[in-house]
Parts: sequence; structure tokens; C-alpha cells
Amino acid sequence: MRIGVIGGGSVGLLFAYYFSFRHQVTVITRRKEQAEAIRRNGIRLLTDGEEHIAKTEAEVKPDAGYDLLFVAVKEHQLGAVLPDVERAAPRNVMFLQNGMGHIPVLERRDAGSDIYVGSVEHGAVREDDCTVRHTGKGAVKWAAFKTASPPDQLEKELASVHTAFPFIWREDWHDMLAGKLIVNACVNPMTALLRVENGKLIEQPAYLSFMRLVFEEASRILAIEDRQASWENVLSVCRQTKRNTSSMLADVLAGRKTEADAIMGYLLKRAEESGERAPHLAFLYDSIKALEKE
Amino acid sequence: MRIGVIGGGSVGLLFAYYFSFRHQVTVITRRKEQAEAIRRNGIRLLTDGEEHIAKTEAEVKPDAGYDLLFVAVKEHQLGAVLPDVERAAPRNVMFLQNGMGHIPVLERRDAGSDIYVGSVEHGAVREDDCTVRHTGKGAVKWAAFKTASPPDQLEKELASVHTAFPFIWREDWHDMLAGKLIVNACVNPMTALLRVENGKLIEQPAYLSFMRLVFEEASRILAIEDRQASWENVLSVCRQTKRNTSSMLADVLAGRKTEADAIMGYLLKRAEESGERAPHLAFLYDSIKALEKE
Repeated sequence: MRIGVIGGGSVGLLFAYYFSFRHQVTVITRRKEQAEAIRRNGIRLLTDGEEHIAKTEAEVKPDAGYDLLFVAVKEHQLGAVLPDVERAAPRNVMFLQNGMGHIPVLERRDAGSDIYVGSVEHGAVREDDCTVRHTGKGAVKWAAFKTASPPDQLEKELASVHTAFPFIWREDWHDMLAGKLIVNACVNPMTALLRVENGKLIEQPAYLSFMRLVFEEASRILAIEDRQASWENVLSVCRQTKRNTSSMLADVLAGRKTEADAIMGYLLKRAEESGERAPHLAFLYDSIKALEKE
Repeated sequence: MRIGVIGGGSVGLLFAYYFSFRHQVTVITRRKEQAEAIRRNGIRLLTDGEEHIAKTEAEVKPDAGYDLLFVAVKEHQLGAVLPDVERAAPRNVMFLQNGMGHIPVLERRDAGSDIYVGSVEHGAVREDDCTVRHTGKGAVKWAAFKTASPPDQLEKELASVHTAFPFIWREDWHDMLAGKLIVNACVNPMTALLRVENGKLIEQPAYLSFMRLVFEEASRILAIEDRQASWENVLSVCRQTKRNTSSMLADVLAGRKTEADAIMGYLLKRAEESGERAPHLAFLYDSIKALEKE
């Protein structure tokens, strides 16, 4: 397939690297310098003490004619790239944003592309313009959001991208994103505020009790049916990523804008619409926004 | 009167300064160098752009024969000075600790002194071994804790210490300390965790809602009868001290041990005894203790 990847961050580089083995990949970056560097050096992947390089194309604007275009920018950067996505008019487009802040935006789109959403469960850190460290091997879950044709052909292609880069099909995009959003809402702001690794949230009883209060609000807002399973998933993610620095903590420490709007902001908007109270999410939202300004 | 003041911190220096006009004052400090400096230079008070100096005595051990001994050390330093208080056997002793962590300690004492507790509602910052800045003019509330004789004579003396240093008698020590403890529990840990001035807690709606959750726990644990009045008092303190850095935030910023044990720690112990849940206080306690270790 002809693959486009919009975004030269950790997720964009990771996707471009793994697709390059069996597909023709172009990375679309915001900065000209990064596109040049990728064209010159390829994408370097660091994993398990090894170093691999994959050659890919790179541009600052997407072409027309992609079979599949990944949109791998943060939710708050989506507005800046959507016109390019429209112009490129790919056959299939998959949005990889965290949270659910992008959903209202996608609902308003009416382009010709089949639209999918994906949930990236890999750990990855960008080290420089061409280098990404694959710190945690997981999977990409994906689901149809607004499609005209069945995903059979795409499913077949995605099943064989690379053994270290599995794709898992999900029937219901809402359940898929909501499950991830709950985890993000529980783990990200608390770790960023307290400046702790993910595991601390379950090791310290007082943090665990507090996280449960956050979970109650988030799961009520999203009308999660199987709350027990969802809570156990939160605990399991904390255990499996116990030595990890959450992306929100990393953003706070690096002085970058966080995904607070896509995560807590989205939930608070939903809560407001239905007149629900969510004091813990509001507290975490305001305190992370204050940290961003520091 | 012969007055002793144990503690050369901001509160100790403030008391020693204001009592020195009409009484014979000795400051008892932990470090020999500070006692020497005070004997040499006196105590310097900075207030409203003015500078005043008062001559006082200073020692590292209290004498016998004080009419009134103030114990102006933090709750967690009390264990180190209590044997000195016992030996000095003053006629009257007044404990000035924040919180209520010292109450179980005082209940176990059975010395000959009349015991009072005080609640210091002044803002003061120690600038060096001999210098204190009086940043907020308030009052000292005081009440009998365990006394053999009526406080009439003492009340008369304390009423005329200095016009800028009023003493206000309270009938019930528990109500007095509990009222202050509630304010401390609401204001101190949140300002320290969020690193904001006191006023932010009422200006930011999400912080205010969260503070209300903390208040509900603390007021239930202390069995406050008039909750509405108590909550309004918390709001009023936030308004009146809106540009102040709370003592706990100051301690965190200076890398000192905070009063988390005397404030949240005491409340959590009481909650545990009665089997109550207090997840917000526990969360704040653990997060401040983590900040202390940083």
C-alpha cells in the first residue's frame, strides 16, 4: 500500500518505521528540516539495545493517492492538519489521537475517505528528528468510525505489517476509545501532578483511593457498563507500566502543552452537558493547566 | 512577669519582641549561636517599613521561676523540649503549636504548671537569627487546657502586652484549636501541592470545590457543630490572606519538614480510630510527605 503518516513525533516515526518493511511510506512533518533529515538518514529505531534503520520518504505536505493515511499528531494540533487531510483525500484515514476530544471534529467531517480511529498501546519516545525509542511493545487497536466499505482488505494488510507491530480489530470505536480514555484520565493527570511513575498510583494506598474517585467520575460520564472490568484494566495498566513516566508527566517536565484538554477537558465538557458534577476531574484539569503555565 | 519563650523561630521571636516592653523576657533557643546573637543584638522587628529593636535575654536552657513560659516550637519538635519545660516548672505554660497533634501529649502530662493552649493568628517570617518580619497583624487566641486556678490575673496581664499584639480569651480550647485546624487542613496542603497563594483556592472554582471536599472530611472528623460558620471562616481566611504563601508551601519551597503530621496526620489518626474514610486528607497527606522527601 501507499502509506502516509502525518506527524514526526514518537508515534509517527514508530508507524513509519514498522510500515516501511512491506509498504511505501511517506512521513509528513511540520518542519522542513525534519523532512530533510528523514530523507537523508532514514528513521532510526532503538529497541532492546539494538539499532535499526529504515529508509522512507518524507515531505511537508501530503500527496494525493494514499491507500492509508495515519494522522499521528496530538489532538490540539489536529485543526492545523485537517485541511491537508481533506486535500490528500486518501482512500482510508486512521486518526490516532489520545482521548476523545477529536470525536466531535470527526463527526463534522464529510469527506470521501473511509475513516478509522486507532488507539496506540505502545511506549515510544522520540530522541531526535529521525530517531524513536520503542520502550514498550504493545499493539494498535483500531475500529471503523465512518466507512462506506467493509474493512476486510485493510484488516488483511494490517495483520501482516510486522510481527513486532500487531493491529487488533475492535467492533466498537466508542468502547475502544472510552476504555483508553478512562485509563488516561486515571493515570496521566495524577502522575503529572504528583510527579511519580505510574506504579506509585497503586503502591500508595492514598493515591489508589483517590484514583478510584477519579475513576468513578470518568466511568459515570462515559456510561461505562462493566465498571469492574474497566477498573481492573486501569490497575493492570499501572502494574504493567509501573516504571514508566506517563506522557502527561513527560510533557509537564519538558514544559510542553499536555493532553489535558483531550482527556479531562473532554470529560468535563460531557459532564457539563449532562449536568453532572466531576470535582476531581475539574481539580486535576485546573492543576495541570496551571502546571503548563509555570 | 518573668516570661520565657522556648523557640527562636518566627513565632518565638515575635512573642519575645512584644513582651519585652512590659516584661522581663528570656528567649530559649536550640543553638548557642542564636542565643549569643540575640543577647548581643536584641530582637529586630520589621513592620510596615519600620525597624525596631528590643533587648532581651537569651539562653539555651530555661531557668526555673517563670511566671509564664511560651512553648513556640513546631509540634514535631515538642518531644525535644518537653523535659526542659518539666524541669523549669513555670507557674503557667502556654503551648502555641499548630494543629492538634500536641493534644494527646499534653493530656499525658501531669506537671504542677497551669497549662494553656494558644492559637497564633499573626503572619511572621524569620529573616535571620535575630530578625523577624511581622507580615500580618492578627491576634493570639488562648484558652485554658488544664489549670488549677482561674485565669483572671493572667488575663489582665495578657490584655496589656502591646497594642499591636492582642490576646483574645476563648472559653473552649477544643473549639478554638479545631477551628484553626480546619482552616489549616483546608488551606495548607492544597496551596503546598498546587504551589499557589492562599487566594487561588477561592478564585479557581475547581480548587474551591475540591477544598469543600477536604472541609467535609475534616469537619466530620472533628464533629464541628456549626459547619456553615466554620466553612465561611475558611473562605474568609482565604480572602484575608489571599496574597500570602501558606506556611506549608513555604516549608516545601525551603525544603523543610512541614506540619503535615500535626494537621492532616492528626485528623487521619482520629478518622482511623472511628473507622471513618478520609480519602482527600489521605491523598493530601501522602502527596505533601512525598514533596518533603524530594
